[in-house]
Amino acid sequence: MINVGIIGGSGYTGGELLRLLLRHSNVQVEIVTSERYAGKRISLTHPNLRDVTDLRFSSRKDLGNYDLLFICTPHGVSMKNMPEYLERSKRVIDLSGDFRLRNPQDYIDWYNTEHSNPELLQEAVYGIPELHREEIRNARLVTGAGCLATATILALYPLRNVIESVVVDAKIGSAAAGNKPSLAGHHAERRGVVRPFKATMHRHTAEMEQELGVRVDFSAHAIEMVRGISSTCHVFLKENLTERDIWGLFREQYGNEPFIRIVKDRQGVYRYPEPKILTGSNYCDIGFERDRGNRLVVFSAIDNLMKGAAGQAVQCMNIMFGFPETLGLEAIGFHPI
Amino acid sequence: MINVGIIGGSGYTGGELLRLLLRHSNVQVEIVTSERYAGKRISLTHPNLRDVTDLRFSSRKDLGNYDLLFICTPHGVSMKNMPEYLERSKRVIDLSGDFRLRNPQDYIDWYNTEHSNPELLQEAVYGIPELHREEIRNARLVTGAGCLATATILALYPLRNVIESVVVDAKIGSAAAGNKPSLAGHHAERRGVVRPFKATMHRHTAEMEQELGVRVDFSAHAIEMVRGISSTCHVFLKENLTERDIWGLFREQYGNEPFIRIVKDRQGVYRYPEPKILTGSNYCDIGFERDRGNRLVVFSAIDNLMKGAAGQAVQCMNIMFGFPETLGLEAIGFHPI
Amino acid sequence: MINVGIIGGSGYTGGELLRLLLRHSNVQVEIVTSERYAGKRISLTHPNLRDVTDLRFSSRKDLGNYDLLFICTPHGVSMKNMPEYLERSKRVIDLSGDFRLRNPQDYIDWYNTEHSNPELLQEAVYGIPELHREEIRNARLVTGAGCLATATILALYPLRNVIESVVVDAKIGSAAAGNKPSLAGHHAERRGVVRPFKATMHRHTAEMEQELGVRVDFSAHAIEMVRGISSTCHVFLKENLTERDIWGLFREQYGNEPFIRIVKDRQGVYRYPEPKILTGSNYCDIGFERDRGNRLVVFSAIDNLMKGAAGQAVQCMNIMFGFPETLGLEAIGFHPI
Amino acid sequence: MINVGIIGGSGYTGGELLRLLLRHSNVQVEIVTSERYAGKRISLTHPNLRDVTDLRFSSRKDLGNYDLLFICTPHGVSMKNMPEYLERSKRVIDLSGDFRLRNPQDYIDWYNTEHSNPELLQEAVYGIPELHREEIRNARLVTGAGCLATATILALYPLRNVIESVVVDAKIGSAAAGNKPSLAGHHAERRGVVRPFKATMHRHTAEMEQELGVRVDFSAHAIEMVRGISSTCHVFLKENLTERDIWGLFREQYGNEPFIRIVKDRQGVYRYPEPKILTGSNYCDIGFERDRGNRLVVFSAIDNLMKGAAGQAVQCMNIMFGFPETLGLEAIGFHPI
Repeated sequence: MINVGIIGGSGYTGGELLRLLLRHSNVQVEIVTSERYAGKRISLTHPNLRDVTDLRFSSRKDLGNYDLLFICTPHGVSMKNMPEYLERSKRVIDLSGDFRLRNPQDYIDWYNTEHSNPELLQEAVYGIPELHREEIRNARLVTGAGCLATATILALYPLRNVIESVVVDAKIGSAAAGNKPSLAGHHAERRGVVRPFKATMHRHTAEMEQELGVRVDFSAHAIEMVRGISSTCHVFLKENLTERDIWGLFREQYGNEPFIRIVKDRQGVYRYPEPKILTGSNYCDIGFERDRGNRLVVFSAIDNLMKGAAGQAVQCMNIMFGFPETLGLEAIGFHPI
Repeated sequence: MINVGIIGGSGYTGGELLRLLLRHSNVQVEIVTSERYAGKRISLTHPNLRDVTDLRFSSRKDLGNYDLLFICTPHGVSMKNMPEYLERSKRVIDLSGDFRLRNPQDYIDWYNTEHSNPELLQEAVYGIPELHREEIRNARLVTGAGCLATATILALYPLRNVIESVVVDAKIGSAAAGNKPSLAGHHAERRGVVRPFKATMHRHTAEMEQELGVRVDFSAHAIEMVRGISSTCHVFLKENLTERDIWGLFREQYGNEPFIRIVKDRQGVYRYPEPKILTGSNYCDIGFERDRGNRLVVFSAIDNLMKGAAGQAVQCMNIMFGFPETLGLEAIGFHPI
Repeated sequence: MINVGIIGGSGYTGGELLRLLLRHSNVQVEIVTSERYAGKRISLTHPNLRDVTDLRFSSRKDLGNYDLLFICTPHGVSMKNMPEYLERSKRVIDLSGDFRLRNPQDYIDWYNTEHSNPELLQEAVYGIPELHREEIRNARLVTGAGCLATATILALYPLRNVIESVVVDAKIGSAAAGNKPSLAGHHAERRGVVRPFKATMHRHTAEMEQELGVRVDFSAHAIEMVRGISSTCHVFLKENLTERDIWGLFREQYGNEPFIRIVKDRQGVYRYPEPKILTGSNYCDIGFERDRGNRLVVFSAIDNLMKGAAGQAVQCMNIMFGFPETLGLEAIGFHPI
Repeated sequence: MINVGIIGGSGYTGGELLRLLLRHSNVQVEIVTSERYAGKRISLTHPNLRDVTDLRFSSRKDLGNYDLLFICTPHGVSMKNMPEYLERSKRVIDLSGDFRLRNPQDYIDWYNTEHSNPELLQEAVYGIPELHREEIRNARLVTGAGCLATATILALYPLRNVIESVVVDAKIGSAAAGNKPSLAGHHAERRGVVRPFKATMHRHTAEMEQELGVRVDFSAHAIEMVRGISSTCHVFLKENLTERDIWGLFREQYGNEPFIRIVKDRQGVYRYPEPKILTGSNYCDIGFERDRGNRLVVFSAIDNLMKGAAGQAVQCMNIMFGFPETLGLEAIGFHPI
């Protein structure tokens, strides 16, 4: 049993973490901070937790000492506060983007910010277990991966040595934009759109290129979903690989991974990865289809609040503390939904 | 050709009015005011009007003189400014709620406000042409009807003398809440809800009771739509009327109405009124089904921005200026959509 | 550990049962039958179960003996086959409508069918634990309750002695219609509708009246959801009860119920029951608002595949076999979703 | 005034054509055929046309002689029947895919069919007016363009000489799949998907390559919309062109086109093309964003039943008969919707 805290827990990622941790057999949630809602019941912003917990939001001033802190603050906050968090807690998982990139220059290029604690960038471990399981096990500071980055990196990682070039066209739901009201997110404006919201220079591109070692031509579109990411990767191969070869590469990489499924069916309605049926699950489903010439289309799908944020963070926690990796992450996904 | 202005034209009702008036053969739009967007292009808030008009928003300070002013300001504004509008313009159509009720006490009871120009309440004509066509023809001040009130009143008006009691359960889309961002209207929160947002004491109830002369037990639910209202009226009849009798009452009342259709089919998917296929049309579709005992269920459907707001206002304008009543309102609705 | 089978498991209710039972610590699923898909992998119709189970559909011919059979066949099937099921299995939970009504005449009146095993109607226990927990504990044959009936009965049961009359206006998602393709359920036709699909004489009305002992004037509308039911009950009270009195009646009835929550908040976006945030949970959320005169509006919300079908069936199973009542039903619901 | 007929008019394209033609000042619709619905009222399958027309479906046996026939039959039908249609009617617009490709071999490669009237392929004019206006004017046989092809070709045509390679990732609504019920199109299965339905070798690719003269690496995804196509074209340029250069190419090509709008705003929510606000309009909105290196992202959006089918067919008709090109196509699109 470990005791944990959540910093900045009033947003969607904080709520999803709470949903998971409150049902996790080895975790005691001690504190959830929100400067705005301090003193209010958790269920005010997380109505699904009504009657499930008596917790109230606290202020950061009330922080004690913990085995683990999860950081869910907006970009730019943990960059400054991380030294304090590391004093308060033996280990930290930061779900923001502040420690994802190893090269301080990348923060200038992609975030337009000079990093305030660049020395910690080298220590931080990029929190995709399928790539960095052993480093995560012993890390003091693990950084969550971007949701779009997670879906895309997992789709391409087994192919990284055979990619000549790749165009990634991702589709994403509204939950990824957080819970701050805006005209862009207003229901009458947002419903049913196909909105190119970051057609070029999306920040998650930097993580993808860091982890894959190849240039990624990336565009994202907001579409009609709340949860969910679907990433379509148009790969141009260096070599003339068959579908069977591709199967081999994925099987070799992910054969024993509990949260990766290769989806490629000849029958039924769901022949390829589909975020719709992953709601609440920690799976990343991956599929592919070989085209003319040297083109290969790879699809991946995740629930962005689970494998793209809170679920993957809990997976990291399980590894860090020696719990079974799937503990508290057994949910299957729904059909229909 | 008349020259018109729109006061408070940056919202959804103002945008819909513009869409109609810019294509109306007998109207010249001279000015559209918005204090917030004065100087900006119309298409900034009404992107569907891109390249359709060169108009920019003006300030109320720039008002000249017009044949007709449409008022689209929030509740409480035109109540105070109406005397000025009536100086500026020969005639006025106010789409806000400020002049819908004839009894000043009703503003205290339902709006919690003392009316600032109660003497004008008697002059104002309630703008549902199917009830008040002749008064509208000669009115100086016409007031738009509430969207929920329009759908409900039109469903019940032919039955008003045979109603013993009536429960109305209405469903409404997000456009009705306007374009001001809020957490309640945030896409991730609003999508897919069935939210009782005014289960009792909805302000439109006052209009319904004023026009129908019967008590209306009314509740509204926000559901997953942008445009559209569906009003289900559970009527308990004074007399044992057959479906045939009901047909007779509706035909007698609405036989020649261009925008009322009685919908009651035995085949096909759309046997009853359906807001989905009324998008952009000015129809109010009405249907009914007789139950056990003295119960009759009446359904009505409208596009709330059309027959529930801008479309009905243009219908009133056509009547006021002697144009054909359907001019500029010929749109049919879409299928599928 | 009990061994169970599912008859007619290729539909949405069968899939949801499987999702729950495959993760239930005290259950071994031995067989799932589908005459149409016999021999095929379960994941062909339940894609969320991909890689979760190796089960394939079997034919009814392959049935062995079980501790419990769940019946998920369409109306009219189990009516005939129940004697065989009761030979094969010590106990049976029938999720179809075939054994819900105690009076054989009701099948003629509401289902237009003469019941083929009327003697079993008396033995069958209506499967809402909040009403019949003790009878369920010892029953051989438990019948699932209709989804609309569950939501409505739970909303009204504590009030049954103070109801003078009640109009119920329910909203329901597309999953309730099952997975058989039809034009009415075709996405381009079904999306965004507010479709009165059973405005009068809905079959579930018979269950409501049986369990509540009052006449229920019921209408249902298909709206834009997949899962979920929201039932709005417009109650006219015999006595002039305050909101506090109403609270008292609900607390007295449901004070210790693990799956009933009274929802009535003054703050936040989710002040009343909302099916959206109940996805995957077994809760029935209930709220109310007192109006003028003797009117009380009561709202209830459920996930129709959970508390309205598979979840409630598992709850009944837990009671029947002496397991903790909430076992396998701990899921909280999601936000946002 | 011309008299026209529609062959195969019970589908979504036929319904949309009727909606336009019934309000077109220069057209008299004489006949609409449907073998399945012959004798039934038009509004049975096109409920939006209720009370708008008295037309009933006819059989093909009842065909007379017309100035123009629109063909809306499924693939493979008009290929055989075209000689008869050309006897019956002075001119023909075929909205199916049967005459879109000039090279008979392409029908074998992409449609897996030997063409039954290959001599007519040379005569047929590909019906995108922005590319073939003069040929359309005098054509006897015009063929509609595929909806995905229209959106993509219009986005890329001005760039055709500077494209080194291009990946196109298109998103499409459910109306494009027609009105035949299937499990894939069943609401509970189809809602909210991001479904790669033709990741490689989509038939419309052949049209794109024919008209553009460059290889197109194309994938399509079914997403949550009814109407609408959004096509994202990831272009790799031969030369290092600036955004200003790109503007120039588009302006030069489309400067006077009534139905093409270049959308690239720095403010507001709709900075790029958005199908949502094009419902019912014949516009193709196009935008673009320049990336690192030689990458350019081009977006286009249409209403697939309008500019992607019926609207573009009416545009062609207007050209063929010397009517103003925008006649009957003045609709603006809606906001919000």
